Amino acid sequence: MNPINRYVQIVLVETSHPGNIGSVARAMKNMGLANLALINPKKFPHQDATALAGNAQDVLDNVNIFSSIQEAIKSSKMIYATSARDRTIEWPTLTANEAASEIQELVSNEIEVSILFGREDRGLTNEELQLANKHLIIPAHPDYPVLNIAMSTQVVCYELYQAAQKNFVESWQDFPEYTSEELNNLIEHFNETVKALELVDPKNPKQIMTRMERMFRRLYPDQMEGNFLRGFLKAVNKRIK
Amino acid sequence: MNPINRYVQIVLVETSHPGNIGSVARAMKNMGLANLALINPKKFPHQDATALAGNAQDVLDNVNIFSSIQEAIKSSKMIYATSARDRTIEWPTLTANEAASEIQELVSNEIEVSILFGREDRGLTNEELQLANKHLIIPAHPDYPVLNIAMSTQVVCYELYQAAQKNFVESWQDFPEYTSEELNNLIEHFNETVKALELVDPKNPKQIMTRMERMFRRLYPDQMEGNFLRGFLKAVNKRIK
Repeated sequence: MNPINRYVQIVLVETSHPGNIGSVARAMKNMGLANLALINPKKFPHQDATALAGNAQDVLDNVNIFSSIQEAIKSSKMIYATSARDRTIEWPTLTANEAASEIQELVSNEIEVSILFGREDRGLTNEELQLANKHLIIPAHPDYPVLNIAMSTQVVCYELYQAAQKNFVESWQDFPEYTSEELNNLIEHFNETVKALELVDPKNPKQIMTRMERMFRRLYPDQMEGNFLRGFLKAVNKRIK
Repeated sequence: MNPINRYVQIVLVETSHPGNIGSVARAMKNMGLANLALINPKKFPHQDATALAGNAQDVLDNVNIFSSIQEAIKSSKMIYATSARDRTIEWPTLTANEAASEIQELVSNEIEVSILFGREDRGLTNEELQLANKHLIIPAHPDYPVLNIAMSTQVVCYELYQAAQKNFVESWQDFPEYTSEELNNLIEHFNETVKALELVDPKNPKQIMTRMERMFRRLYPDQMEGNFLRGFLKAVNKRIK
């Protein structure tokens, strides 16, 4: 069982249409999530919720209903609030994709997370947005950037599931990734070798080496790759001296 | 204007609920898509479609209705069919994320693409699936892997928009990426240098070099980086000989 099932809570704030609650339940179960909290839903339970939940009836059956967001999130250590891009309020903001990676890391450490979704017509209020540690936006076309609430939940749950799968795959790699210290040492070793080979244009040494550093950081090598590159550089330096 | 707007057509096959057509229109416009084709919709136009389209009324207004898939896709050069994972039929299959990268590349070259979505209750028939060049699946939890049709469209359009944004960012890089031929030459140059340095364990030379090749391919270097690495290897070889 992936920890997103256990440690991620989806919170719908004052949803008007019960059909949306059902659609959210299905979107969650499709992506392996189970914990749904409702804050003052207008109509629930309701036949439209049941109809749209499909085979996610168990998610609806286990819904928790609260009269305030504060009550719903009290056991969560990290709160994300979904928000449209054009808010004037300044807050740490992540895309759905970025948030999903972060959340996967949190729940892997058994940290409870809540993700707030606002009303169909006007989202979350500024006061509600300020209950969150971070804001989460779904990149969308500027001509019409406002997704339906169930669609927003689907995209966020999809990204969470993708991140969980990636995490699962990575945990089966046979070599762990280089730590940042090991990566720094590799870059330093490469820079020294470049200098020893007299390769850097003295007119502009900084720019190209900044680019090469950026390249190594993008590479994100594992232990096997990084150690082979270190061995390669060592052998090169032996020939120079 | 990103080419996904112009060259990607979403095709809904025999949709039963007009509300889903409206939701798809909104999901498309949210992600910058505009071309919607309907094959024998049960009810359309319909007030439910209009209600759920929100501000994507223009997408509904410009819908093309056909009586067969063949007619709808005749100007498309690449056809993707969305499919559940458990089909018995063997076909080239991509995830939504993989397909989005591929489609971004196709439409950047002005190649028309159609993506087929099946009926709410039973998807696409085997005959319809065989009209497609490739199948597209949305990774989902095995307990309940079947997404609502509008949700499937949302996820696919979201991935297309993400790929388009990424492409846009990359197109502003100051150096173009290495071509696959240039990358092959770089890898070959590295392999020769490793051999000249007598670095490869004669007991298992293949495995480590396969890993290093995989590393270079993952790196996806640009011209500036690739050329600097070639210059580096050239300088190293000069010292060896």
